[in-house]
Amino acid sequence: MADKVVAVLGATGVVGTQMLQCLEERSFPVKRLVPLASARSQGRSVVFGGEELPVREARPETFDGVDIVLGAAGDAQARELLPEAARRGAVCVDNSHAFRLDEDVPLVIPEINAEDIQDHPRGLISNPNCATTIGLVPTWPLHRVAGLRRMIVSTYQAASGAGMGGLKELERESACIMRGEGITETAPFAYQLAFNLIPQIGGFADNDYTSEELKMQNEGRKIMHLPELRFNCTCVRVPIMRSHSESITCEFDRPITPDEAREILSAAPGVKLVDDPAQLRYPMPLDASDQDLVLVGRIRRDLSAPDGANALTFFCCGDQIRKGAATNAVQIAEHLV
Amino acid sequence: MADKVVAVLGATGVVGTQMLQCLEERSFPVKRLVPLASARSQGRSVVFGGEELPVREARPETFDGVDIVLGAAGDAQARELLPEAARRGAVCVDNSHAFRLDEDVPLVIPEINAEDIQDHPRGLISNPNCATTIGLVPTWPLHRVAGLRRMIVSTYQAASGAGMGGLKELERESACIMRGEGITETAPFAYQLAFNLIPQIGGFADNDYTSEELKMQNEGRKIMHLPELRFNCTCVRVPIMRSHSESITCEFDRPITPDEAREILSAAPGVKLVDDPAQLRYPMPLDASDQDLVLVGRIRRDLSAPDGANALTFFCCGDQIRKGAATNAVQIAEHLV
Repeated sequence: MADKVVAVLGATGVVGTQMLQCLEERSFPVKRLVPLASARSQGRSVVFGGEELPVREARPETFDGVDIVLGAAGDAQARELLPEAARRGAVCVDNSHAFRLDEDVPLVIPEINAEDIQDHPRGLISNPNCATTIGLVPTWPLHRVAGLRRMIVSTYQAASGAGMGGLKELERESACIMRGEGITETAPFAYQLAFNLIPQIGGFADNDYTSEELKMQNEGRKIMHLPELRFNCTCVRVPIMRSHSESITCEFDRPITPDEAREILSAAPGVKLVDDPAQLRYPMPLDASDQDLVLVGRIRRDLSAPDGANALTFFCCGDQIRKGAATNAVQIAEHLV
Repeated sequence: MADKVVAVLGATGVVGTQMLQCLEERSFPVKRLVPLASARSQGRSVVFGGEELPVREARPETFDGVDIVLGAAGDAQARELLPEAARRGAVCVDNSHAFRLDEDVPLVIPEINAEDIQDHPRGLISNPNCATTIGLVPTWPLHRVAGLRRMIVSTYQAASGAGMGGLKELERESACIMRGEGITETAPFAYQLAFNLIPQIGGFADNDYTSEELKMQNEGRKIMHLPELRFNCTCVRVPIMRSHSESITCEFDRPITPDEAREILSAAPGVKLVDDPAQLRYPMPLDASDQDLVLVGRIRRDLSAPDGANALTFFCCGDQIRKGAATNAVQIAEHLV
């Protein structure tokens, strides 16, 4: 396996920074690392493999000679630059929403559909939305056994899902309130997030769902190859720094007990079963942060299901910057080399 | 209507303090107020009607001559003292869990089942759990039109749901973290709540549901007189000071559109419709705090329902100390006088 020239687009953001760390942690075979960002980041540098590397402004020609691009930029930059990188021979693993639902671009969670990675005619592979990945990693192994037909999800999403600016804003607001000061500015959030909840992530569609909620539905169907999956989601921003949590109710085609689910999930890839009520053990975002597994627990029968034996409710937490973004992208890249 | 001698049991706690304020705000006809608490609160006083009143230790004889007791104490104290108060001729409106599911004790949200107040053979009327009340106030008017058959609820519950101690602990932890200090003690919570979520409220039952989750199910069935209602709930403590929020999915017997639901809820008692996505208007706990209405919004079709026209998803927030506890109790007492 020859070492690769790897570019990270958006290398100075929350996800890009985490991608560099994941490449190092997982000993990805990097021949040369090319940190790229928008003109705003000119003059900054990143540290990789013990070396300080200047961040270059991303332009089409900066992708010459690059084997793999990890994209951690926004939709617009991804749309403009990644097809140029692919034209120059790179394979791009992109974390933006730009190409996720394009038919000829695979959308991949390696624990679920690694086989989709190989067929990437445009040189583009998409990384799912963070909340999608965190919800699907523990749901998939249950689907394989019992046949998923319906999901109802309510999320509890961290400030850093809105990038470094979101994290800093929550810290700033929390400190202001602790000092007894009022909050006037709230960007990047529409309202104060500290000691509050905001039941809106992304813009609203015509059906009054938010883009985040529709992403979870549409990406989930594509990744699991379940185009008819019935999916309902409510996405809520909560005042925590890191790791998204989800309260999930699943209906299946066949019976499955909580004990069977625990057995399946205790052996599932990418999952850590944390489910011992007697010992007060259940998933919490603080425990999910800064590691790569999705924690799952509070597994129990859905008491409301018409056919109670076919439905489960559970709670899961995952680090949305790592498994929800950077780690998943690096895992996809590992399948490429 | 003759003025009443009103005792508040647990007058120095979060809910008791709010009850005193609600009695004043609503000009309840109080002849004499008797603030009672456990021996721990001896020597403290409360202010009511501009007067400073010493808090007395609650004993059976302290209820002599009392017409109405508002109970804001724990289950044990309620069980010990309120039957004594009733024996002495008082009618007790109790906020504890002690009697809520007893067959001969009405459990009342006045907007839903005020008619149940009149029949209280034991002199006891129970106030529901706070999360129950906040979820049912907006659900009931929809049930009346479309016939509720299934509810799936995920909650986002404030620190002050665990009393004054919970509120102080969240403030203390938040300040520690803002100063860069670690958290060691977390009481009354099992784990750090600041910048974290705890998916456990109350103890665990044999089916791995928590007591809070089962309260919502069982109290909801009793209050709405729907003993067969299918109900599934996940209760999560979130790091906010005040007001509980709930993400609710309801299935109905008959079709109901989001527009119909908005029309119904805009005229429903105890509800404030806050549902204008184009203007980024939706319920948030900061807006729900320190007032008595349950805010409801994010109303939309449940995209996952087998019969989509019969199911809705929405988000609601209510002040769990006011409508979730004190205000509801005082409203019940108003029906008694």
